[in-house]
Amino acid sequence: MPPRNVINARVSPKGSLETLSHREVQQLSEAGSDSLYKLFRQCALAILNTGSHIDNAKTVMDAFLDFDVRIHQQDRGVYLELLNAPADAFVDGEMITSTREMLFSALRDIVYTENELQSRRIDLSDSQGITDYVFHLLRNARTLRPDVEPKIVVCWGGHSVSGEEYKYSKTVGHELGLRKLDICTGCGPGVMKGPMKGATISHAKQRLTGSRYLGLTEPGIIAAEAPNPIVNELVILPDIEKRLEAFVRVGHGIIVFPGGVGTAEEFLYLLGILLHPNNRDIPFPVILTGPKSAAPYIEQLHAFVGATLGQAAQRLYQVIIDDPVQVATQMARGLKEVKQFRRERNDAYHFNWLLKIDESFQRPFDPNHANMASLQLSRDLPPHELASNLRRAFSGIVAGNVKDKGIRLIEQHGCYEIHGEAAVMRPLDQLLQSFVAQNRMKLPGGVAYEPCYRMVSSELAC
Amino acid sequence: MPPRNVINARVSPKGSLETLSHREVQQLSEAGSDSLYKLFRQCALAILNTGSHIDNAKTVMDAFLDFDVRIHQQDRGVYLELLNAPADAFVDGEMITSTREMLFSALRDIVYTENELQSRRIDLSDSQGITDYVFHLLRNARTLRPDVEPKIVVCWGGHSVSGEEYKYSKTVGHELGLRKLDICTGCGPGVMKGPMKGATISHAKQRLTGSRYLGLTEPGIIAAEAPNPIVNELVILPDIEKRLEAFVRVGHGIIVFPGGVGTAEEFLYLLGILLHPNNRDIPFPVILTGPKSAAPYIEQLHAFVGATLGQAAQRLYQVIIDDPVQVATQMARGLKEVKQFRRERNDAYHFNWLLKIDESFQRPFDPNHANMASLQLSRDLPPHELASNLRRAFSGIVAGNVKDKGIRLIEQHGCYEIHGEAAVMRPLDQLLQSFVAQNRMKLPGGVAYEPCYRMVSSELAC
Amino acid sequence: MPPRNVINARVSPKGSLETLSHREVQQLSEAGSDSLYKLFRQCALAILNTGSHIDNAKTVMDAFLDFDVRIHQQDRGVYLELLNAPADAFVDGEMITSTREMLFSALRDIVYTENELQSRRIDLSDSQGITDYVFHLLRNARTLRPDVEPKIVVCWGGHSVSGEEYKYSKTVGHELGLRKLDICTGCGPGVMKGPMKGATISHAKQRLTGSRYLGLTEPGIIAAEAPNPIVNELVILPDIEKRLEAFVRVGHGIIVFPGGVGTAEEFLYLLGILLHPNNRDIPFPVILTGPKSAAPYIEQLHAFVGATLGQAAQRLYQVIIDDPVQVATQMARGLKEVKQFRRERNDAYHFNWLLKIDESFQRPFDPNHANMASLQLSRDLPPHELASNLRRAFSGIVAGNVKDKGIRLIEQHGCYEIHGEAAVMRPLDQLLQSFVAQNRMKLPGGVAYEPCYRMVSSELAC
Amino acid sequence: MPPRNVINARVSPKGSLETLSHREVQQLSEAGSDSLYKLFRQCALAILNTGSHIDNAKTVMDAFLDFDVRIHQQDRGVYLELLNAPADAFVDGEMITSTREMLFSALRDIVYTENELQSRRIDLSDSQGITDYVFHLLRNARTLRPDVEPKIVVCWGGHSVSGEEYKYSKTVGHELGLRKLDICTGCGPGVMKGPMKGATISHAKQRLTGSRYLGLTEPGIIAAEAPNPIVNELVILPDIEKRLEAFVRVGHGIIVFPGGVGTAEEFLYLLGILLHPNNRDIPFPVILTGPKSAAPYIEQLHAFVGATLGQAAQRLYQVIIDDPVQVATQMARGLKEVKQFRRERNDAYHFNWLLKIDESFQRPFDPNHANMASLQLSRDLPPHELASNLRRAFSGIVAGNVKDKGIRLIEQHGCYEIHGEAAVMRPLDQLLQSFVAQNRMKLPGGVAYEPCYRMVSSELAC
Repeated sequence: MPPRNVINARVSPKGSLETLSHREVQQLSEAGSDSLYKLFRQCALAILNTGSHIDNAKTVMDAFLDFDVRIHQQDRGVYLELLNAPADAFVDGEMITSTREMLFSALRDIVYTENELQSRRIDLSDSQGITDYVFHLLRNARTLRPDVEPKIVVCWGGHSVSGEEYKYSKTVGHELGLRKLDICTGCGPGVMKGPMKGATISHAKQRLTGSRYLGLTEPGIIAAEAPNPIVNELVILPDIEKRLEAFVRVGHGIIVFPGGVGTAEEFLYLLGILLHPNNRDIPFPVILTGPKSAAPYIEQLHAFVGATLGQAAQRLYQVIIDDPVQVATQMARGLKEVKQFRRERNDAYHFNWLLKIDESFQRPFDPNHANMASLQLSRDLPPHELASNLRRAFSGIVAGNVKDKGIRLIEQHGCYEIHGEAAVMRPLDQLLQSFVAQNRMKLPGGVAYEPCYRMVSSELAC
Repeated sequence: MPPRNVINARVSPKGSLETLSHREVQQLSEAGSDSLYKLFRQCALAILNTGSHIDNAKTVMDAFLDFDVRIHQQDRGVYLELLNAPADAFVDGEMITSTREMLFSALRDIVYTENELQSRRIDLSDSQGITDYVFHLLRNARTLRPDVEPKIVVCWGGHSVSGEEYKYSKTVGHELGLRKLDICTGCGPGVMKGPMKGATISHAKQRLTGSRYLGLTEPGIIAAEAPNPIVNELVILPDIEKRLEAFVRVGHGIIVFPGGVGTAEEFLYLLGILLHPNNRDIPFPVILTGPKSAAPYIEQLHAFVGATLGQAAQRLYQVIIDDPVQVATQMARGLKEVKQFRRERNDAYHFNWLLKIDESFQRPFDPNHANMASLQLSRDLPPHELASNLRRAFSGIVAGNVKDKGIRLIEQHGCYEIHGEAAVMRPLDQLLQSFVAQNRMKLPGGVAYEPCYRMVSSELAC
Repeated sequence: MPPRNVINARVSPKGSLETLSHREVQQLSEAGSDSLYKLFRQCALAILNTGSHIDNAKTVMDAFLDFDVRIHQQDRGVYLELLNAPADAFVDGEMITSTREMLFSALRDIVYTENELQSRRIDLSDSQGITDYVFHLLRNARTLRPDVEPKIVVCWGGHSVSGEEYKYSKTVGHELGLRKLDICTGCGPGVMKGPMKGATISHAKQRLTGSRYLGLTEPGIIAAEAPNPIVNELVILPDIEKRLEAFVRVGHGIIVFPGGVGTAEEFLYLLGILLHPNNRDIPFPVILTGPKSAAPYIEQLHAFVGATLGQAAQRLYQVIIDDPVQVATQMARGLKEVKQFRRERNDAYHFNWLLKIDESFQRPFDPNHANMASLQLSRDLPPHELASNLRRAFSGIVAGNVKDKGIRLIEQHGCYEIHGEAAVMRPLDQLLQSFVAQNRMKLPGGVAYEPCYRMVSSELAC
Repeated sequence: MPPRNVINARVSPKGSLETLSHREVQQLSEAGSDSLYKLFRQCALAILNTGSHIDNAKTVMDAFLDFDVRIHQQDRGVYLELLNAPADAFVDGEMITSTREMLFSALRDIVYTENELQSRRIDLSDSQGITDYVFHLLRNARTLRPDVEPKIVVCWGGHSVSGEEYKYSKTVGHELGLRKLDICTGCGPGVMKGPMKGATISHAKQRLTGSRYLGLTEPGIIAAEAPNPIVNELVILPDIEKRLEAFVRVGHGIIVFPGGVGTAEEFLYLLGILLHPNNRDIPFPVILTGPKSAAPYIEQLHAFVGATLGQAAQRLYQVIIDDPVQVATQMARGLKEVKQFRRERNDAYHFNWLLKIDESFQRPFDPNHANMASLQLSRDLPPHELASNLRRAFSGIVAGNVKDKGIRLIEQHGCYEIHGEAAVMRPLDQLLQSFVAQNRMKLPGGVAYEPCYRMVSSELAC
């Protein structure tokens, strides 16, 4: 890896409302290994690393070992002192404003998350408590805005897709923006960025100010998927499950673009929730779409859902190939139903309280070898439970591919083993193999993809 | 008391950012006697009662026994349902916007205060913990704004003063506003309103938008001193000590106008803090002022300070009689020093962290008969401690005069007894008697003033 | 006259959009006696003279003979250099923002008026041409705002009234402001200021930003009635007739408070127009009101209208004594009808195109002795024509009382003679005498009022 | 040509400040052949035709023969009724906001231009008068903003360029936008759009609101180069010379991208002015740039300038190949000098008054055959005069290629003949031939390019 350009700088939260107490500054400044400081440093580095195209967390961290960030209190508020920061975050020596904003969003979320966890009020032992926790985190980040019509469209998909898929996501974003819809993604490049870029142009054409480009991330993934600089609301949720819950409670509709295992994980999470009997009547527009070149991928994913979760699951979303206008028109139509429904039930526009999310979806899944091995993957389960377990399987594979901890586990113990009924394992294996064939699996450092799992009944080499 | 005009209405927080979780709505809706609901109802009634000139808490509460407020969740956020609300809060059936805003500020503060108290993070057992608590309450109310120059002028004084004193406070406010300074008071009519009204006019002349009219109150006093509708930032602190700490940490300078015992209490609190050796070098502009007609009052108060706390205490403030331009000019000059000082020490403009507030000023003083009787009032004490005890004496008298609980205590047990050294008791007695003579003691329901205390060494009838 | 405090300063139009071409700067800088420069200097001095209470044009001009204003072009736009300017316009050496804005409004209007007059497009020889001219002047001043509901309430009345009348106008303004109505007056103190001050407070209570305090004036009157600093839109029309037309085309309703001859002139102008047969169906809320103490005045004016113009004229307005809430409620109701009517006829909300204004009301009336002597004042005329002539009579008397040119004419030629039918002259004489008795006639320099007219059939001493 | 999708609609100027008088509405509504109406209809159609890629004026007009636009006055202002309007201007039946704004900008400019021409003030017979005229048109369009630092970068280049050149202009725009610079182009697609699109994205990253995307056009070219919808300030100048003057007086620096004859015309206009002896000391950053693939074109143009106007002309601009960061950095540096210079000379930031523009550049050039034939093209002329004549030659060729009137002239009379000294004619011929070879000449309707001119001394077939 070549030496990176670095820069030292001081930044203050221009126009931001963030203030910190002396105690909070102190907490953040303690450079102990388990401290908030370490977490903040990691997020800060990811945010500053926007220009880079590295998507392997370890690599990013290693490239800027001497990066440091210090927090100071001063007369006009707080400021950050950055040492050896990636130069790409600056233009002519001045930090790009969006980057600066995101740094302070990270600060806000890390301080607040810590504060909340110390609160007796938060009861993470029951489902309602977890939902309340997510609500409080989002409220503190000022993401929950009353009196605004439902118009947040979540876009899921790969952060490392083909040029054609990227361009398609941009065109879809442009059409969504022309219809004055806002965009929410998981941060990062690729499909996480395309729709925001397209919508930025069409929002300008519609003379909209105050458009929202919402990025929801979590510390474990932010290093690998740095928020793109169009994101104007960054929220760092404490873990992947809170982040997924934030997506479905804050988003009013979801578009699934081509992606890899991570996208499949998100899609299964969503289907698992929507399949829950309690959610049967709640309108939630979901569209699975891509350009013509991605048709095989989309059809395969659709077939996989049919084969494992059945036709009922397939009816929860529309499949639209290569038609951005149609995608945007259908989404706009779906959002009208959402609005109508929430108005009738007096459910908040800004937070989907009515949606039942089973505890199995809320609990962090620890992708160690034992947990992966004991996942039940059988069609005998109710569909929403099978979806939940499939989601965990994908989650583990994502961890093994790109997450710091996952990578280390695989290095130590070898591949995960995944067991299950053949009627589930076969389609799963086919799907994953096609991901590899289509180059949709993460390739850390550019080397050939090496699976981090083994289907036990199907003898895949690790 | 004649029947009051009442109205039923629904109000929602137009343009406000407040959102509540399901749990918070539930907490507020439980109509148990000890509940948050009771507290909120009381504050809401006080806020709605703006038009009234009743300043006796019991009377206000009794006038609207059938008033009720209910909180509902709906699609666009939360709304309040008001039953039998005072009609004065409405114009042609629509609630005055400032009143509506203040209702939701009360909601915000009550919910947050409760949440904070449940947090393990808050440690009310030490001084720093209490300061952090005040900081968090103010931050949540968005009162702490970084990147703003020091310009909050606290105005203390009576809420029931003569027409001339009221007009004088308005003129001073006008001059402050011409110099683009903001106003902070304790809510209520009289001197709490005059400066805001004057500044509103001069801010309009200066074409300022975003001027701040900050009202700091607490549940025990809000009923007697309803926030005037010019207040555009209302914060309800949990008790009188937090409120006083908020004044001195958020305000950049303080003007003391004529008032009664309450004003004397605030003045002594301030002197007590500024007399603390740690605070010797911290610039804090304080001006004692009034119109020509109030000269005797001002001189008496000034003499009382001299007699009890000494000349060092007198040097902490300027006395200016009947000269609004001079008051504003001196205050503006003082604020420049504050800015200079904080810049040099890197202390926040928005919160006076450096000011040492002794725990004796932070602890709530429970004005029961035993506590009142055991106050040490002797010139042998260090001046800042004597100031602290004098402050408590005044605090008890205010409670006995106007506060619900205090009034009931006096009804049960008779007058408070206050003991002390003659060199302190004599000036104190003279000051209080002159307050009575000048009609500066609260007269609940218009009847002749009946003291609620007895100076033990000086044989005052109770 | 004591020496006045003066100040030298440079001011630039902060945040204003005004730009001038080189040629325009040159035009304004030529200090020839007939030049625009002279006109601008005069208006500028009046605007800077806000703090003064002199209402005699000559006196004001004479007090600041060495005042000078120069216009310079610079990199960031235009700036004004002021020499020996009244110090009252400054706070701590900085010009009050509203004053600064008004200086540049004057510049804008004087330049534009001159430019328009040079345009072949403007045809001042016919009624429609004059209306177009007024429209262009107002549009250039950005006074005409489409897409805003009718809510401009014109307040007419004396600029030198009793304390009670002033306070009443303030209370009415407060009630209008609570109903979110805007205020338009003719600039100056007294009733021209009271409603704006009251509305400023209530607009703050309603958290309105962008409220409008419109001041319409003309060069001949601005020196005597300096715009009060609350005015946030100042328009200088070229003469009294354009100003009056601006009032009735831009205002949506009119409140007439107690005043002197000037107020009577405006009232008769209004009645003359509303009496025109073409205007019969156009809703135009007019209210004649005052505090209890002004009841005699109001009744007398009402009786005068009845005696000269008849009951039909009386039905064009409501008389409300001492009831601000009622005034505001009735005005708000009237404005709803105006809105309804304009919507049905597709007439602009921002300019009352449909109102027929006869040329006799549009042509400047030159109050020389011949013109005054030849006014026809007879009940044989159609009411709207008699109203027009009565208006001219009052206009002449105002000129003789306070206007530069009028005062000089009277000094040269003695009193005006006014001829007419006894049935008109008698009530007119009574009204004017009662104005004198009630101290409602202008008293230049504080000396006893000396009438500038003589009723020929009624032997009044000049 | 296939049938186009059309739509009928009513649009009103949401949020715009435009108001029209009755007379102006009438002027615009008269459907006579020479009327303003015809001009407005043509501009409106061009604006609505944004989505189309036709760049031949006649073709556009012919495609929507039944398009009609009517102007109506109504309560809330003016609205337009559109019949058979291009459907591409609408999303789900609602007109795109930028298109709507531009329609009303066209209305504003056409009405104002007409009004100005009727003004005696405007003296188009001398150079200063023309400059004043341009100033007034721009001021009325609110393009001249005082108190804003110099940051308008004009981008010139082809509206029909290669994909690579388009992308390059986008990247340059992105870098300019990161440096917070605004973009001004001549409207239309290609290089007129690329920099705006790039800057839109980077302005979003810098969280800028109020960025300016200025489009300057004229009625003769708007049909062929419809404003792209990112333009948020459209000004329609009355002819090509006023438009060119607007570019150099309003822009603070100019970037010349690859283009065709039109771009060459603009470049020569600029060099002609900067070569004028009076302008020697005025800083005006000019950059000639393009991607690597355009290097031959740039070098040729650079050589042409050297061969005809000499090295002094070449020193007026920098040549930068394939380096967007360098382009933006150099431009930013140049703008700092502009600011410094204007500050020192007290010249307005918003209008380059000091720049001397010779009358020969201000007078419309009528490209008829006689005028084209009599152009003097010799190196004996002072360089700025030769530049002026070369500019006219290019202007005539552009007209013959794409303008309605020019095309008809060529149809009637055959090719233009251009005479001149061989030392000028030879490089000119080479340049034009290379334009043809590089596909940079307009190809109406996609047919092979047919030159509309003949170099007399060099025997080119017409």
